[in-house]
Amino acid sequence: MVDDVAYMKRAIALAKLATGHTSPNPLVGAVVVKDNTIIGEGYHHKAGTAHAEVHALNQAGDNAKGATLYVTLEPCSHYGKTPPCALRIIEAGIAKVVVGSTDPNPLVSGKGMDLLREAGIEVVCPVCSEECAELNEHFFTYIQTGKPFVTIKSAMSLDGKIATFTGQSQWITNDSSRRDGHILRATHDAMLVGIGTILADNPQLNCRLTDTELSEALLDTSILDETIHVHQPDVIILDSLGRTPTTSHVFEVDNRKVHIFVSKGCPKERIQALEQVGALVTVVESVATRKSKSTDIVIDIKKLSIDDILTKLGDFGYTSVLVEGGSAIISSFVETLNFDKVVTYIGNTIIGGTEATPAVGGRGFESLESSPQLTFTKTNILDNNIRIEAYRQGRRGAYVHGNR
Amino acid sequence: MVDDVAYMKRAIALAKLATGHTSPNPLVGAVVVKDNTIIGEGYHHKAGTAHAEVHALNQAGDNAKGATLYVTLEPCSHYGKTPPCALRIIEAGIAKVVVGSTDPNPLVSGKGMDLLREAGIEVVCPVCSEECAELNEHFFTYIQTGKPFVTIKSAMSLDGKIATFTGQSQWITNDSSRRDGHILRATHDAMLVGIGTILADNPQLNCRLTDTELSEALLDTSILDETIHVHQPDVIILDSLGRTPTTSHVFEVDNRKVHIFVSKGCPKERIQALEQVGALVTVVESVATRKSKSTDIVIDIKKLSIDDILTKLGDFGYTSVLVEGGSAIISSFVETLNFDKVVTYIGNTIIGGTEATPAVGGRGFESLESSPQLTFTKTNILDNNIRIEAYRQGRRGAYVHGNR
Repeated sequence: MVDDVAYMKRAIALAKLATGHTSPNPLVGAVVVKDNTIIGEGYHHKAGTAHAEVHALNQAGDNAKGATLYVTLEPCSHYGKTPPCALRIIEAGIAKVVVGSTDPNPLVSGKGMDLLREAGIEVVCPVCSEECAELNEHFFTYIQTGKPFVTIKSAMSLDGKIATFTGQSQWITNDSSRRDGHILRATHDAMLVGIGTILADNPQLNCRLTDTELSEALLDTSILDETIHVHQPDVIILDSLGRTPTTSHVFEVDNRKVHIFVSKGCPKERIQALEQVGALVTVVESVATRKSKSTDIVIDIKKLSIDDILTKLGDFGYTSVLVEGGSAIISSFVETLNFDKVVTYIGNTIIGGTEATPAVGGRGFESLESSPQLTFTKTNILDNNIRIEAYRQGRRGAYVHGNR
Repeated sequence: MVDDVAYMKRAIALAKLATGHTSPNPLVGAVVVKDNTIIGEGYHHKAGTAHAEVHALNQAGDNAKGATLYVTLEPCSHYGKTPPCALRIIEAGIAKVVVGSTDPNPLVSGKGMDLLREAGIEVVCPVCSEECAELNEHFFTYIQTGKPFVTIKSAMSLDGKIATFTGQSQWITNDSSRRDGHILRATHDAMLVGIGTILADNPQLNCRLTDTELSEALLDTSILDETIHVHQPDVIILDSLGRTPTTSHVFEVDNRKVHIFVSKGCPKERIQALEQVGALVTVVESVATRKSKSTDIVIDIKKLSIDDILTKLGDFGYTSVLVEGGSAIISSFVETLNFDKVVTYIGNTIIGGTEATPAVGGRGFESLESSPQLTFTKTNILDNNIRIEAYRQGRRGAYVHGNR
């Protein structure tokens, strides 16, 4: 059992080598062991290419006969872009398969292991199941809901402000928090901001970590001393009227897409202009939002439908989206309960002010009964900032972190 | 050295037995050790009574000759309500004194140890200095500034709200957070609220922990298995116009004082009525505060002067005050930098809303350069709430937690 955990941890580390590159497929690592020696190992590199088990079995060759296979996710049993791995395992003569977590994909769930057992192979499951499920928390939600896993990132003062009443926001959090935020960018398929962020800051919205920095953050070198290649997340801009300037820095980053979601009211010329500089423009539904003002006046404003946006992103094959704000965008996701995880960085100051910008603005929840319940999973001091990780209760996805 | 730490930890535990009862004196514990056996121990119980060293030396009797004395705070060298402990130690024939932390009291600071050394006693200092300084963080600030140590307690959602936009606030945090908040009450001389809290909730504002609960929270039973008697903190209400109802629940708790701070504009009849139900009423200065509204209108409002209130509380002998809010009161302390420590409890929800009540309201800081810098010292998950502890940088007091 101790060995099982050690080999599974190596398989998990191998899986992580493809962080950000396998979408819409999961991260999977595999190790073939015989006589306490690793005789083959591998991981899934990219959708449409060989699965982890195939790489590991190919490396093991004929020696795989009678060996044990460790795989982080239940082997598939269906014909997708590649033939089912369960059959390949049976053909290779593997004697025992140790599985990290079952695949919630309805096309697989349990069937892969059934196939192996029917062929007389001993199957052990789960081993390191929490870690394996966490590895694919994005995929698990995506495969069950058809929509991406949504992580909300916010950086605020201890009292929940993201800017002073004069609008100053740079920087509330420190270098270490911002570097940690770039790890989130590298581990998500795409990042999402509102037009406000583009107009105010004209950011590049890229991941500025080196391969070495990302590898140090995600890999335990005592288990695997290799390098993860940083993935640039695609960019999604919510921009009802297509106001993103065609000269924005977001268009200057290579090897990634820039999606712009606009409303039906967006001028055609704007769509054409944005498409000409490479943006992928999608028209989505708008929904009415009641916003009550302190003066008892109720005004109706229209916002892009977050449900519609997430459905379209799922259709495009995005398994995860990192929502980086600002305040209005974050509240749109929070108020419609369209989020799975929250990562909050707290800078070492108090800003105060009823008119300072709150981390989550909008209308807000009317009662505590209607507000979302979270499960806190981590909190730590990060170089004199605080980092908090929480999951929304009741979401669909991996069976970890209060989601049972 | 290992033994030194063990004996000092016992002295610290002894000191804690008087938690909340020694004000305006510090918490001090002492242990007399000879041939690796404790032959005497004690702690300071109450201002005006014997110091810890005297209790421990009395218990040791003639046996103290040649023994080692462990004491959490440098022995005093001046005549106060009792004679100097340094002389008593010399008379007892103690051979060695191990001191936890030096006394920042200008009447003592270093002089107590000098006196011992001059008498040929070996002095070791510091041992467990951080723990000993933390034990008296209230006293250390009070003795240097003449004002109480101020702890701000707030209970908020992950996005920094203390109520929904409809005003619902009970309960954002859970039982465990609220129980922890009662530990803060038991460890502070007094707690402070605004008239808003009295009118809205009519609370008793008492510490509802049992002696056993408090002892379990503060003492390591493997070091000392005794019981701390819960101290009821005095209550301070900031109430410009003396609107506190004479029938308020705050007047129903025994063995504690209720102070009401009013402005010069407070009607005399109100002061008399409040004094008749036992309140101690103090008139303090008011200061003008600019509050900018979103409409560019700037209005001048007057608030009680926090500086004046803290000076008066120091004069009354309060070494510590726990500020429990609400939003306006907390912002008054934050904006004037009149705080030493912040303890924040975060409930497992997100409330949102630009009009929901923020943890720190008021005008707020104009820039990040002017906002207070904090040193985070602790964060942990407390039964699915988060607890964060931070100190304000630049404050005066114990040399711990970023205050060097």
